[in-house]
Amino acid sequence: MAVTNRDMANAIRALSMDAVEAAKSGHVGLPLGMADAATVLFRKFLKFDASNPDWPDRDRFVLSAGHGSMLIYSLLHLTGYKSVSRDDIRNFRQLGSNTPGHPENFVTKGVETTTGPLGQGIATAVGMAMAERHLNARFGDDLVDHKTYVIAGDGCLMEGVSQEAITLAGHMKLNRLIVLWDDNSVTIDGNIDVADSTDQCARFEAAGWVTRKVDGHDPKDIEAGLKWAQKQKQPVFLAIKTIIGYGAPKLAGTGKAHGGPYGAEEVAGIRENIGWPHEPFEVPAPIEKAWKKVGERGKDTRKAWKERLMASPHKGEFNAAIAGRLPKNLSKAIIKHKKAVVEGGEKKATRQWSGAALEVLTHYVPEMVGGSADLTGSNNTKTAVTGPMTPKDWAGRYVHYGVREHGMAAAMNGMSLHGGIIPYSGTFLAFADYSRAAIRLGALMGARVIHVMTHDSIGLGEDGPTHQPVEQVASLRVMPNMLVFRPADGVETAECWEIAVNRENGPSTMALTRQGLTPARKEHTDENLCEKGAYVLSPSGVKSREAAVLIATGSEVEIALAAQAELAKEKIHVRVVSMPCMELFAQQDEKYQRETLGGDLPKVGVEAGVRIGWDRWIGPKGGFVGMDSFGASAPYGDLYKHFGITAEHVADTVKGLI
Amino acid sequence: MAVTNRDMANAIRALSMDAVEAAKSGHVGLPLGMADAATVLFRKFLKFDASNPDWPDRDRFVLSAGHGSMLIYSLLHLTGYKSVSRDDIRNFRQLGSNTPGHPENFVTKGVETTTGPLGQGIATAVGMAMAERHLNARFGDDLVDHKTYVIAGDGCLMEGVSQEAITLAGHMKLNRLIVLWDDNSVTIDGNIDVADSTDQCARFEAAGWVTRKVDGHDPKDIEAGLKWAQKQKQPVFLAIKTIIGYGAPKLAGTGKAHGGPYGAEEVAGIRENIGWPHEPFEVPAPIEKAWKKVGERGKDTRKAWKERLMASPHKGEFNAAIAGRLPKNLSKAIIKHKKAVVEGGEKKATRQWSGAALEVLTHYVPEMVGGSADLTGSNNTKTAVTGPMTPKDWAGRYVHYGVREHGMAAAMNGMSLHGGIIPYSGTFLAFADYSRAAIRLGALMGARVIHVMTHDSIGLGEDGPTHQPVEQVASLRVMPNMLVFRPADGVETAECWEIAVNRENGPSTMALTRQGLTPARKEHTDENLCEKGAYVLSPSGVKSREAAVLIATGSEVEIALAAQAELAKEKIHVRVVSMPCMELFAQQDEKYQRETLGGDLPKVGVEAGVRIGWDRWIGPKGGFVGMDSFGASAPYGDLYKHFGITAEHVADTVKGLI
Repeated sequence: MAVTNRDMANAIRALSMDAVEAAKSGHVGLPLGMADAATVLFRKFLKFDASNPDWPDRDRFVLSAGHGSMLIYSLLHLTGYKSVSRDDIRNFRQLGSNTPGHPENFVTKGVETTTGPLGQGIATAVGMAMAERHLNARFGDDLVDHKTYVIAGDGCLMEGVSQEAITLAGHMKLNRLIVLWDDNSVTIDGNIDVADSTDQCARFEAAGWVTRKVDGHDPKDIEAGLKWAQKQKQPVFLAIKTIIGYGAPKLAGTGKAHGGPYGAEEVAGIRENIGWPHEPFEVPAPIEKAWKKVGERGKDTRKAWKERLMASPHKGEFNAAIAGRLPKNLSKAIIKHKKAVVEGGEKKATRQWSGAALEVLTHYVPEMVGGSADLTGSNNTKTAVTGPMTPKDWAGRYVHYGVREHGMAAAMNGMSLHGGIIPYSGTFLAFADYSRAAIRLGALMGARVIHVMTHDSIGLGEDGPTHQPVEQVASLRVMPNMLVFRPADGVETAECWEIAVNRENGPSTMALTRQGLTPARKEHTDENLCEKGAYVLSPSGVKSREAAVLIATGSEVEIALAAQAELAKEKIHVRVVSMPCMELFAQQDEKYQRETLGGDLPKVGVEAGVRIGWDRWIGPKGGFVGMDSFGASAPYGDLYKHFGITAEHVADTVKGLI
Repeated sequence: MAVTNRDMANAIRALSMDAVEAAKSGHVGLPLGMADAATVLFRKFLKFDASNPDWPDRDRFVLSAGHGSMLIYSLLHLTGYKSVSRDDIRNFRQLGSNTPGHPENFVTKGVETTTGPLGQGIATAVGMAMAERHLNARFGDDLVDHKTYVIAGDGCLMEGVSQEAITLAGHMKLNRLIVLWDDNSVTIDGNIDVADSTDQCARFEAAGWVTRKVDGHDPKDIEAGLKWAQKQKQPVFLAIKTIIGYGAPKLAGTGKAHGGPYGAEEVAGIRENIGWPHEPFEVPAPIEKAWKKVGERGKDTRKAWKERLMASPHKGEFNAAIAGRLPKNLSKAIIKHKKAVVEGGEKKATRQWSGAALEVLTHYVPEMVGGSADLTGSNNTKTAVTGPMTPKDWAGRYVHYGVREHGMAAAMNGMSLHGGIIPYSGTFLAFADYSRAAIRLGALMGARVIHVMTHDSIGLGEDGPTHQPVEQVASLRVMPNMLVFRPADGVETAECWEIAVNRENGPSTMALTRQGLTPARKEHTDENLCEKGAYVLSPSGVKSREAAVLIATGSEVEIALAAQAELAKEKIHVRVVSMPCMELFAQQDEKYQRETLGGDLPKVGVEAGVRIGWDRWIGPKGGFVGMDSFGASAPYGDLYKHFGITAEHVADTVKGLI
């Protein structure tokens, strides 16, 4: 007897519900509903080879509705990925298993991106699809020619980030992006009509997509839809009508079907209704075999691809790009740039210095793809070699993301996860708040992305408190696996950029000024002094009579230096420590930390932001010159005076302490 | 000679460009482009009385494209608001002026909400329009019967939050919400087609709006559009086609027209092109007079309204609601509730205790309107007296916001600003990241809103690191004017709620557990012990030999208490301080702080979050038991052990310190 699509889909259903019952938690509604569609997708369309999850030219499959993680674990397990064994399925949601509650790409091979926070998957997938087109333009059809599939739920589509993602995708005409919407008309609070009345197909069409309605429990209709999707010139939105919790006697089609174990009775009812008389976690051999064959379907395609790669003149370049290896001469180029900066001695904003560093970096690193959320001129993110990336010129390396900070951050995650691109992009630091959910996901995943965040304090002046970050630097410092850089001048900016670009296992944020700064570094060093996070920028001169330590970052370093000079006139000798990256400094050994910060000497922190995060370095009794409220609208010189972030105030604070 | 709409619009244009030139910064592109439409709106439609900016039944006007602030300042000034004098216009963007770079409602009377971060205005306006309908249902047409107008730009519409806002508005059939889109086809990076191809009218229609295209420089067409808008049964989107920087010889219609002073030559060209031969900041008397008349247009309407109010049986209730006064018996009811909680001695999650507190609060405070971003059952935000608010039952006090955290937070700001509502709503704490931009704006504006954020640590268990906050509590603590509460049991939850609801000048966040907690407070006190932010929950018992101090919040208080008991067995006597609100504790005098924290005794902080923010209380050498990485997916008991947040570890940390 032939194994049908339905039989195979039922294996997903059974494993999913058995796992959720065993874990006593999880979300089986989506796997039950989308099993038929996912089975057709994997059986007939998705290009993959279960034995080679890292094959660069595989299709990407993103489960944006990440709570339905048992769908993806079932698929990976059944198709033969080594990463998910039957025992992993049994250990769903347990400590140390490969099957965490939501799909985590850094835990489970075959999972392309971490999902769960709604809307992130679809927005990340847009970045993956852009990366594919860009690398296709760079390396040709022989090496890069794949699609990106997404399963998204109502929750994903209600999140604002989805709008940023789909309008960007529509604008970019990403026809290799195919979204399967699990159109089950149910959310946690009840029927969708409790909270939403959006005509999703019309909405996607307004964003430049093509759409088609599909019966999610009819394999033929699903296949016809996916076949049609292959030929479109625009991104594709398939509205797959399904029944959430398909098969469950009482719960199917209700809000309660979304999550939680259904209980023995419902599960028995499902077994009965879908015709699955087998024991928990048991899959009959013919169905297992049919699924394994699906996992091997792409083997020959992959082999042929591998042969093309081996024969390609681009081989070395392609492998280096995918591995994210930087050119060997980059380090020297940065040293040369630093030398020129010191010699020039110019007063410039660090955003301008960032632009200058990017000219060097983007010249040497073809994998760097930049962009801005409609603030290109302000963020200084566009360089000579990075032309606009458009549907007509995918080789371009600069994305005009539009006013879409959140979609931009998510797309950067997608590019990074896809491989072959080191993305960076710009906005104002205050608007990090808009993209924080995606920034965090990048930190969790260890994505190599760089967030250029200019206008990093009240120093931006007249635009006022809505645009003035006072707590954003601190708010990013609290995020695990994030490096926050706040360089003080052109040299530090170049050094911080060097660290950020070299960082392979997580995101970096560059907090940069709008206003011009006096150079802090007067002498050239080949060594990257920012690498340890903080260093003595200007010794006290009279070590035996050193009275205090000033620690500053970014634009406040020049204020600390001015205070040092003033104090020296009064024979009060202090050192100035520049601390461009607290997280890196925290990684140094205690000896270096104590030496740099002058042991038990009284300390004053200077940063045009909130104090939280500083006590670790200056102590609760240390002085702090910064902000303890929102800012105000005025020319920035007036604001620094108004809020007391001045050399005089720093000097007075020192005097009060010693 | 009759003063025309164009003459009056030109006064806006002139004041706007003169102010931007004088300030040498600002954005004149929008005022130049939208002056005609805004003039028609104020002259013929907007219900307001310049001499009574607080009139509760006025129409609300929101400039979502806040960078065009000179438009609103010109309008306020010309119509006779006392808040904006000619000198204020001259002092645009200067320290202490009433005319900051972006409109700030807490600075300038007549400005309804602070805008600038794009998309926030339109999303806030949705909350205002909901508040109007709700209060209309409560108090009737006689007292509440007004509209909400929004001017939004392309940037607002590209932001994801706008999608959440417009789908919510469409779903709620907010026909008194009228959006005027400044359809100028230009953003900062250039023509809109550099970054966007969305068919905005189709998009709004997909969200349940009606739309109409309008020629933004033809007063008759604008008037016809606004007239039509009054009669619709759905929210209205007017696509007002304009030329950005209208009149500027070189810049009009270009990306460069967006911001920055245009310079003397362009400004002279504009004067010539629009026929405005007057000196800077000069407005001819007939035009001034015509504008003043506009400002007085609503006087009689307001008087009639006032008479209706004076005669209304609802007068007292209405005034109390608008003033946000709480009933006098509330405090007693909370005390009674606290007593019952202590006597019950139940082990429950603080999210459940929050639900219990809300039963009391919503019963006594009819102004409280709740909701959740599709997590009603998990957030415990729905109470017996709060039925769903729907287009068919506006009297409902519970909003099913859908999966729209950002739109929800912005709508809450709008309800609060509108007056008459004290909004609260729920989501998971991890997803505070989605709504942070709106949360921040609420903090800046001092909006009285309460964010219920449940599932506040790894204690949520199996859903894993995407859902587990480790840095969110810290990230909210760094925000100025935000109170973050993390109560430890049912009594503390009630006390924190009491403080939050009473707080009139800013937002509060309630960080609440998913998991059940042993009661921390065993004895009833009428006094609200949380009011000082921290207090000695459990003294060491042997004060003379007190060895250390444990400071904990929320779910970790029970761990600290267990550690205290363990240590006592070894004759190590420590006190336990509960610190439900760091910000309130920081406001206490030093004496109370030192006494509570046991002076110089060694301290150990215990919180299932990052350490940043704690050093102030425990010192850099203090011990901390918490998180220094993202979480993991597993049952929560396993996670607490895995990450070492246990009584044993706390006890060991104390021993290591003393």
